[in-house]
Amino acid sequence: MPTKILLQLDGDLQPSVFDAVVAVDAGVEQLFRHGGITPDNVRELVHGAMFTRGPDDLRHTAIFVGGSDASLAEKIYDTVRACFFGPLRVSVMLDPNGANTTAAAAVLAAERHLALDESTAVVFGATGPVGSRVVRLLARAGCAVRVVSRDLGRAERIVEQTQAAVPEAGLSAHAVPPEEALPSVLEGSQFVVAAGAPKVQLLSRQQWQSVSGLQVAIDLNAVPPLGIEGIEVTDKAASRGEVTCYGAIGVGGTKMKIHRAALQTLFTASDRLLDAEEIFAIGQDLK
Amino acid sequence: MPTKILLQLDGDLQPSVFDAVVAVDAGVEQLFRHGGITPDNVRELVHGAMFTRGPDDLRHTAIFVGGSDASLAEKIYDTVRACFFGPLRVSVMLDPNGANTTAAAAVLAAERHLALDESTAVVFGATGPVGSRVVRLLARAGCAVRVVSRDLGRAERIVEQTQAAVPEAGLSAHAVPPEEALPSVLEGSQFVVAAGAPKVQLLSRQQWQSVSGLQVAIDLNAVPPLGIEGIEVTDKAASRGEVTCYGAIGVGGTKMKIHRAALQTLFTASDRLLDAEEIFAIGQDLK
Amino acid sequence: MPTKILLQLDGDLQPSVFDAVVAVDAGVEQLFRHGGITPDNVRELVHGAMFTRGPDDLRHTAIFVGGSDASLAEKIYDTVRACFFGPLRVSVMLDPNGANTTAAAAVLAAERHLALDESTAVVFGATGPVGSRVVRLLARAGCAVRVVSRDLGRAERIVEQTQAAVPEAGLSAHAVPPEEALPSVLEGSQFVVAAGAPKVQLLSRQQWQSVSGLQVAIDLNAVPPLGIEGIEVTDKAASRGEVTCYGAIGVGGTKMKIHRAALQTLFTASDRLLDAEEIFAIGQDLK
Repeated sequence: MPTKILLQLDGDLQPSVFDAVVAVDAGVEQLFRHGGITPDNVRELVHGAMFTRGPDDLRHTAIFVGGSDASLAEKIYDTVRACFFGPLRVSVMLDPNGANTTAAAAVLAAERHLALDESTAVVFGATGPVGSRVVRLLARAGCAVRVVSRDLGRAERIVEQTQAAVPEAGLSAHAVPPEEALPSVLEGSQFVVAAGAPKVQLLSRQQWQSVSGLQVAIDLNAVPPLGIEGIEVTDKAASRGEVTCYGAIGVGGTKMKIHRAALQTLFTASDRLLDAEEIFAIGQDLK
Repeated sequence: MPTKILLQLDGDLQPSVFDAVVAVDAGVEQLFRHGGITPDNVRELVHGAMFTRGPDDLRHTAIFVGGSDASLAEKIYDTVRACFFGPLRVSVMLDPNGANTTAAAAVLAAERHLALDESTAVVFGATGPVGSRVVRLLARAGCAVRVVSRDLGRAERIVEQTQAAVPEAGLSAHAVPPEEALPSVLEGSQFVVAAGAPKVQLLSRQQWQSVSGLQVAIDLNAVPPLGIEGIEVTDKAASRGEVTCYGAIGVGGTKMKIHRAALQTLFTASDRLLDAEEIFAIGQDLK
Repeated sequence: MPTKILLQLDGDLQPSVFDAVVAVDAGVEQLFRHGGITPDNVRELVHGAMFTRGPDDLRHTAIFVGGSDASLAEKIYDTVRACFFGPLRVSVMLDPNGANTTAAAAVLAAERHLALDESTAVVFGATGPVGSRVVRLLARAGCAVRVVSRDLGRAERIVEQTQAAVPEAGLSAHAVPPEEALPSVLEGSQFVVAAGAPKVQLLSRQQWQSVSGLQVAIDLNAVPPLGIEGIEVTDKAASRGEVTCYGAIGVGGTKMKIHRAALQTLFTASDRLLDAEEIFAIGQDLK
């Protein structure tokens, strides 16, 4: 059996150690790690993955695209896929800074407690790599989503992009602050997610606990103060009043399982392309 | 048994993935990959390979020198060898951009159909890394070689260099275009190789099929239009008129076998130095 | 059992091959090699080591800090340790350019022949990475140490730093040249170590062989002319007159054993921090 090779393509100069350890723990035998990757220098590396093994063995070579710059990673991912033709291809996973696996874990957590297709969600920090993916996954699951950002224009852009990907989605854009906007943004929602920048509190305890009908609240921030006051970073389906709460570490276990399972999926065929949706589906199969 | 370690020294900033996959498939257990290598920064790395294992175990450490710049790789290869003294040495393979393994595979293909020491070959694109090695290997095999380039001066330089390495060689330099030179360059040859730049047609179908006595034609270009019109990239001993034809992929299988076998040879002793000739000899033993 | 992962953090642009080979020979299964490391870019990499495995498995991940610039490596080592909190930590070894393992091997060699706590040592080249560590290890062992440098100010700084670390140490600073200072520096000493720059002779044969009571002389220089005339690089407990002598290669075998044993120690717990003293203690257990 050919050795399982993973080509780690990272936009950062120093390729992620986090992604490398998870790859080894997912059973990767040889890891080829490259930092400083751009759409301009990636093709030759992808050709090296495509042209070295026979079509039957290509499923033992795969590519992971990561890095802290999600937008750069997406461009690399697009360039990688454009290199393939016919049976000359290998499987690829995109997970810049864990954005896809984290978003998948957050939506899976909510799904345990809510019928997403009958719910309304409020996503704070919705324009970041994790937030925008949470929006997309929720929209695909039939959830109405309120897309919240400090900047209304950026929120509207996420709404447009998500609508283009999921035409049937029910989306609206909102700017917070001003804080006066909060009550109407929250009213009637069953699910709140905070995916904003570290150390910025987005909701006070009073603000979210007074939302009638709120069932699930997830804060993906690992560094206190968290975005949602009153949630602990280790919360894992913790009951706080009427609301089931998750913190970043509480979601992290599922994120790691999804990350490993997605990597293992890469090696089951040579044509797997794992972006947010496919990674979420892998997470659903884990349940 | 000590772990098989290969030190990959690559002149390109991103070390070759192609060479890395082949190394793993040849049985290398630990691959230390370095990009951006120059003669100036390589010594310390080579010392690390020389001074870490006892003389009896040094054959389990080896060095591969590669990269897309063949001239830089040759300088690195020379510097690596100059680091060694006494029994403090490890085996080294030079194969920048596959030039040595590709040239060896091409000459081996011809050898299956021709008595090289009784033949005359025409090498187009003879001044590039692959072409110049094809010239050298053919000259060593006793084949008369017509060295063809767009630039007569560069063709003459290859003739001089080859003559210096193989004093008994029968070599001549030719410039094409002008196209009027072609008939006399081709006349009386039994073997034609095209090792020129991609996407440049060097010979029309009419031009080579009208050469009486031509027996073998090989085009090493993988991207159409090929250098020799009428050859397919997948040709592998395909009969076209009187001529046995090979395309780049048709030669590629042998190239990969030679590449893997050469890497395995590195680990049989600590003093193997594998340049074109040694790699060609390894290819001959595979038959 | 989780795979043994070593994160190699090197201040040099090209991470050390020497350290990598020793790591593999010490049983490391996956080596993540990073060059160009600084205190500024190391945190994210350390977080990747800390946050990927459960507390029970963290002892299977470890960090090695190296590079030719010992002062930079020390800063990286400090930054790495400052990343840890609670059980979220991995073991770390500091050995820039082999300074810790070489110093440990030299002091261990002396210890075989001398009661260090009853001896006086003279350390030449005492301000370099190896020399300053030899001073510290000897001071901890209760040996009186004469710290010698070309520059009295630098020697005094090493005395101060060592005194701060080992308050009970008996230390004095000396400048040589002038050569006239030598007799008094050497008089009454039982042990002489040369850890100076390559190719600089520090002591003539006549100078050290006339020291009455001198029992051990060690030269850590591998490139002739050595620092102590009359010692051979391969000397290993060689008797020269009344003096037991060691050269760099003679000490090298013990250095390699200590280096490997220290790496293996990293994987016995998640909280090992191996600087000169801990590495020396590991060496003592090998005897």
